[in-house]
Order: sequence, then structure tokens, then C-alpha cells
Amino acid sequence: MEQKGLHVAVVGATGAVGQQMIQTLENRNFPIAKLTLLSSERSAGKKVVFKGEEFEVQVAKPESFEGVDIALFSAGGSVSKELAPEAVKRGAVVVDNTSAFRMDENVPLVVPEVNEEDLKWHNGIIANPNCSTIQMVVALEPIRKAFGLKKVIVSTYQAVSGAGAQAIEELKSQAKAVLEGKEFTPEILPVKSDKKHYQIAFNAIPQIDKFQENGFTFEEMKMINETKKIMHMPELEVAATCVRIPVITGHSESVYIEIEKAGVAIEDVKSVLKDAPGVVLQDEPAEQIYPMPADCVGKNDVFVGRIRKDLDRDNGFHLWIVSDNLLKGAAWNSVQIAESLLKLGLVKA
Amino acid sequence: MEQKGLHVAVVGATGAVGQQMIQTLENRNFPIAKLTLLSSERSAGKKVVFKGEEFEVQVAKPESFEGVDIALFSAGGSVSKELAPEAVKRGAVVVDNTSAFRMDENVPLVVPEVNEEDLKWHNGIIANPNCSTIQMVVALEPIRKAFGLKKVIVSTYQAVSGAGAQAIEELKSQAKAVLEGKEFTPEILPVKSDKKHYQIAFNAIPQIDKFQENGFTFEEMKMINETKKIMHMPELEVAATCVRIPVITGHSESVYIEIEKAGVAIEDVKSVLKDAPGVVLQDEPAEQIYPMPADCVGKNDVFVGRIRKDLDRDNGFHLWIVSDNLLKGAAWNSVQIAESLLKLGLVKA
Repeated sequence: MEQKGLHVAVVGATGAVGQQMIQTLENRNFPIAKLTLLSSERSAGKKVVFKGEEFEVQVAKPESFEGVDIALFSAGGSVSKELAPEAVKRGAVVVDNTSAFRMDENVPLVVPEVNEEDLKWHNGIIANPNCSTIQMVVALEPIRKAFGLKKVIVSTYQAVSGAGAQAIEELKSQAKAVLEGKEFTPEILPVKSDKKHYQIAFNAIPQIDKFQENGFTFEEMKMINETKKIMHMPELEVAATCVRIPVITGHSESVYIEIEKAGVAIEDVKSVLKDAPGVVLQDEPAEQIYPMPADCVGKNDVFVGRIRKDLDRDNGFHLWIVSDNLLKGAAWNSVQIAESLLKLGLVKA
Repeated sequence: MEQKGLHVAVVGATGAVGQQMIQTLENRNFPIAKLTLLSSERSAGKKVVFKGEEFEVQVAKPESFEGVDIALFSAGGSVSKELAPEAVKRGAVVVDNTSAFRMDENVPLVVPEVNEEDLKWHNGIIANPNCSTIQMVVALEPIRKAFGLKKVIVSTYQAVSGAGAQAIEELKSQAKAVLEGKEFTPEILPVKSDKKHYQIAFNAIPQIDKFQENGFTFEEMKMINETKKIMHMPELEVAATCVRIPVITGHSESVYIEIEKAGVAIEDVKSVLKDAPGVVLQDEPAEQIYPMPADCVGKNDVFVGRIRKDLDRDNGFHLWIVSDNLLKGAAWNSVQIAESLLKLGLVKA
């Protein structure tokens, strides 16, 4: 006899984000009747434990999605492009963590705290935004609602786990080599498929993803375009500089904003963020309380601190935003979308 | 018989910056007839090698400066406040690397590429700016000259060596402990004399120096106030967010600027920076060429790359600026000021 609940598939079940998705489904006690774990041929056959039960990971193919209600994809853009439509054809709703469909006009790009309502017009696929975008819009939306928003300039301090398990290993082994004075050859970062690779241990690399013609990287353009789409503000001024630093997990962002309203005080911004969904305010300079990546790991929230009023512009504010890039930046936001689909009756158990 | 040249004193000769000052004096073949190395009581008696000759470090006291022509100070603000006036009284010109006199109206604050002329009105003491300020103004001054400058927003990625030799040791030993899964207790960073200390290995700490009432740190206010003073632009809009990252040496800065002139292209900015004194342009995105801290160590230049035109404002530009914080940020700028004093005839051998 089948358990009451949904048939959920996780595509990319053995990856850094896939593993967090499975853990998050378990932690949230998501109503699962049947769990199907899928991957590429390379990882198929591996065993993954969910709620104490061992599951064998199977090769993802179109037929894998027969009877699936919700499919969480995190196995790279090309896998999503090929298999997400196949899953939809078979009746599944897809929550896709890759960039494959994010800017597609027929695909909602959703951060539940910001635009949960956009789930209502989905056509089978829902896109999960880029990690660095998600944590920023969670912090900016309550400010926009209260005071309006005109301009955003962000500089990121991004962890290597955003580049996958191999990048984590590279940082660790390089750091060890540097400390021991040994030789090493960078092979993964900044971008595995790009021409050159650079040291990440005890360094900062101002490149995440490849470069576009305009000098911005794809990561920077994702932050710019996705922020406008999620917040429904095509007119919003957004600029980003994305930098990889030697942190394993936890993205940080230094953000300057200009709001619409005049005469807003720091305390007004703090008061709005204090009650905002998904946000934890950590901002007591006198007590040296501010968010740091080492403190955010394993938590679903977005942490905000270092809130300052610009010294020159009355409508300018500075913020420091930190979150676990594998959770709110990926796995948790995907599972949260699945929970919203259930709550809104868009998927039925 | 005395050698032809100057009597130079280095105060703080055993510190991270003092050591670089002595090395830089040697590398530049600065005309030294007599070298006096001074320090606190704690470090006195240590031996330091200059041009193959061993020097014993002596306790710094007022009488130490008898006959000294140029005294380079880098032993903390309280030492400078006490002894710099004593050195001046005895006829020395002081180049002070601490923050003790930087905002004093009677003290020029000098980066030779930007405001060498300010040396002419010195009253015995010349202040060397904060490390993160120096590299930024070297890159911004040629842009200001060519196109005017209205607004600067900077987010820093600062190395631990800016906090001294103990901070370097703390990063190294912590990184080792994290990799080996061992316990550790932070004791130095973010600010040795502040209440709480945090992990720096595989982390990012958004605090450099202590906090002011307005929520900005002293480091951030130094960048704001010193930039205006050096560039002679009290009206310039400047905001800074200063962050410590796990890098040993080499500060990086993500900088957004708004210029006065309209219609300026990326190539115009590149062309101005290419010929600017003290600047090395490293900006070929297609070849993944951009500045990184790991590449700048041991070099006197300021490296600039990732130059992009803002996508929303015609007068907005983004830059990534990297330099060795112990050299151009401290020791080299101090020695360079000494060289300028000689060149301008303000000190005579």
C-alpha cells in the first residue's frame, strides 16, 4: 500500500545541492509517498539515505518521470533543457535550480518570500534563481515594499561550494599545499570549463562564470536580470561585481541601495527587516554583532547587518547580507517552492 | 668618514611594515649615510640586516632623533603622537604611517602620484594614508583629471597582514586547524583590542577597526575622509564597506564611480589608466586577465581591471583595484614620499 503524499523526484541527487535537497526534504518532513533519485550515468548506482532508508540512484531518462508529481532538478543546465520538458509532458511540476529557464517569459522565477504569487501562472516549470540573487531579494523586498527601491549596487564575496564539490576539494587541498609550502596546479576555479584556472586559497578571484561581451560575467548579469524579474521591476537600476573568495559555504554581499522615500532612518530600515519573512537581523555594532558566512552554514535564513545610512544621500543605505548558498541559495528555496505549490493547491497530494 | 647621503631613522623597525620599509630603502638604493633602527623596548636588541650589514634595533626615545634627516614612523599611533614632534623638534622630517596626524589640517596627507605638491607646505610631519585609501586614489586620480569625479562607493576585500604579523599567524594556524578538524580560539581578528574575536580562516569579517557611533567603522571613515583630503575634494561623495577576508597580503577593492563627463566609453577610461603613474592595467576579460591579490605581492604598483560601464547610468563605471597593502599601501608609499622630498629639495643630503 502506498503512503499518502507525493511522488517526488530529485535529479542530480549525488551533487552538492542535490544532497542538500534530500536532507531538506527530510528535515521539513515534506509529504513524500514515493522518492525517485536520479542522476547522470556516471553517478547512477550510488546509494543515498533518506529517513533511514537506502535509495539507489538511477539514470535520469524521460520515462523516469512517469507518475512523478514534483521533480527538483539540479544537474546542470543541459540536463534540465533535455529532461524538464519530458517531466512536464508526463504531468510533473518541475522546480529547476539551473539557469536553463530562468529568463524564459513562460517560466516564473520564484523566491517565495518575494513573489510566491507568480507560481499561479506556471506552465509546468518553475525556475529557482541564482544563489546570490535569492539572498539579496529576500532582504531587498521588504525595503522596497516599505520605501520603494530605485538603485542597487552589489559586490559579492562568494563561497566555493557554489561551484560544486570539486571546487570545495580544490580550496581545501590548495590551502593545505600553501600552508606546507608545496606546489599545486589549479584545475577547477574560477570556471571549470574556461581556459585558465587560478589559485583560490588565500586569494580573491573577480570572476564567477564566463565573461560576456559587455565585460560583465554571466553571474553578474544573472544577478542583474533575475533581480528585476523576481521583483517585477524592469526599471530597477542594478549592478553587480561577483567575486569568489576562499570560503567553503556562505555567500556574503555588500549592497548599496537608493530608495524612493525621503527621510527614512536606519531604525526604520531595521524595523522593517526585523519582521520580514526569511530574514534575521544581526546588527549591533557596539556588540560586534553582524552576519558572517561561518555562522550561517546549515541555516535557512538570510542574515542582514551593517545597516548604515549613506553619509551623502538621504535615500542611500548600505547593507551586508549573508546566507548559506546551498540552502536558501539553492536546496531550501527549491523545497520551499514545492511547499508553496502544495499550500496554494497547485500540486495535490 | 661618513658616507654621502641622509641620516634615516625607521621607527617600528621589527614590525611587518617596518621590515618592508627597510627592504624598500635597500631595493630603491635610497641615499643613506646613516641608518638608525628604532622600536619599542620589547623589540629592542633585535638584529636587522640592511645591505648585508647587521644593525641592532634600539629603543626609540626623543634623543634618538638627534641628527636624523628623515624618520619613517610605523610603530602605532601613540608612539607617533609622542615621538614624531620630538623628531621634528630635532630637525627631522617625519613620514608617519599611522593615523595619528592624517586628518590634522597642518599635516599634508600624501600619495605622490596624486598630491606630491602638498609636500611643499609640510610643517615637519607628513602623513602616509591608510592602505586601502592609497591604492584607490592612485586609480581614481587619473580618472578625476580626465573626466571629473562625483561619487565613489567601495567594498573592500582586505588581507590580514594589514592587522600585523600576529594576524598573519592567526590566519595560518586557524586554516590548518580547520583543515585538520581541530579546535581553535580566535584571539587577534577582527581587532585585537576589541571585545570579541572571530574566525578569519574560510570566513569573511565585515569589521576592520572599531565601530563609530554612525555604524561605520574607523577604517571605513578613514577611506571616506582621507580620499577627500588627498584629492582636495571635500564635496566628493564617498562611501566604504570594509571587509577582512582570508588573504595574507594584497587588498582588493570593488569600486563604483560616477564621473562628471557624459559619453565616456570603457576604452577612454582604459586609455587614461594605461598611462597613469603607478597604475598597471590588467583588463582582458576574454583572456581572463584581471588583478588578483595572489599576483600583486611584492610589487609596488596598483593593478586595475574589470572596468565596466554601468548598464543604467552613462556616467557610472565599475573597477576592481588590487595592490600589495604592505608596499604601496604602506612601506613603498612612505619611501616614495621620502624620494619626493629629496626630488623637490625639501630635504637636502
